[in-house]
Amino acid sequence: MKQYEHPELDSVDIANVLQALADPCRLQIVRHLLESPEQEFACNEFPIEGAKATRSHHFQILRGAGIIRTRVDGTKCMTSLRREELDQRFPGLVAFLTQSAASPASV
Amino acid sequence: MKQYEHPELDSVDIANVLQALADPCRLQIVRHLLESPEQEFACNEFPIEGAKATRSHHFQILRGAGIIRTRVDGTKCMTSLRREELDQRFPGLVAFLTQSAASPASV
Repeated sequence: MKQYEHPELDSVDIANVLQALADPCRLQIVRHLLESPEQEFACNEFPIEGAKATRSHHFQILRGAGIIRTRVDGTKCMTSLRREELDQRFPGLVAFLTQSAASPASV
Repeated sequence: MKQYEHPELDSVDIANVLQALADPCRLQIVRHLLESPEQEFACNEFPIEGAKATRSHHFQILRGAGIIRTRVDGTKCMTSLRREELDQRFPGLVAFLTQSAASPASV
């Protein structure tokens, strides 16, 4: 069964994280996770557009930067935000992203 | 006399800002501005390394993303953070950057 690799957040620096977030589609993925009461979503449940390969690429970038975690569940890949770890490693980041999700003018 | 152009922050989106910040040298410039009691610095007063052209490029990227303002003062270019405007346009961003400046582990 396919397993995804997730970096330790200690090995991720802030420039990596900002780079990964600096894309409208990837921000939309993160905001969806921040705004939803559900913790996890299958990749096709995110309200993003684009070809499957492009979407997979976005998830891969976010995963590589330590922002999301992907768990294989049967035939599905369930994605969640590494919220607590991010908050510990980069204090203020989750709060900022949450505030930005609430002000769509800044999208 | 050379004048620098500065975008209205309404025309800057969050992905532009994150992209501009996603570089260790540019983060260092912003942190220097955040941490210092002085409001303005000449470009050569920032504790960053690199050739003059590279440094100028970093300032240009930050200026283009609406993060800093550059004012010509005689033969000097004085740079300041557009802190209040940023705080209004992207609530939580300045707080996050300030917190990250205080935790050098996340550099």
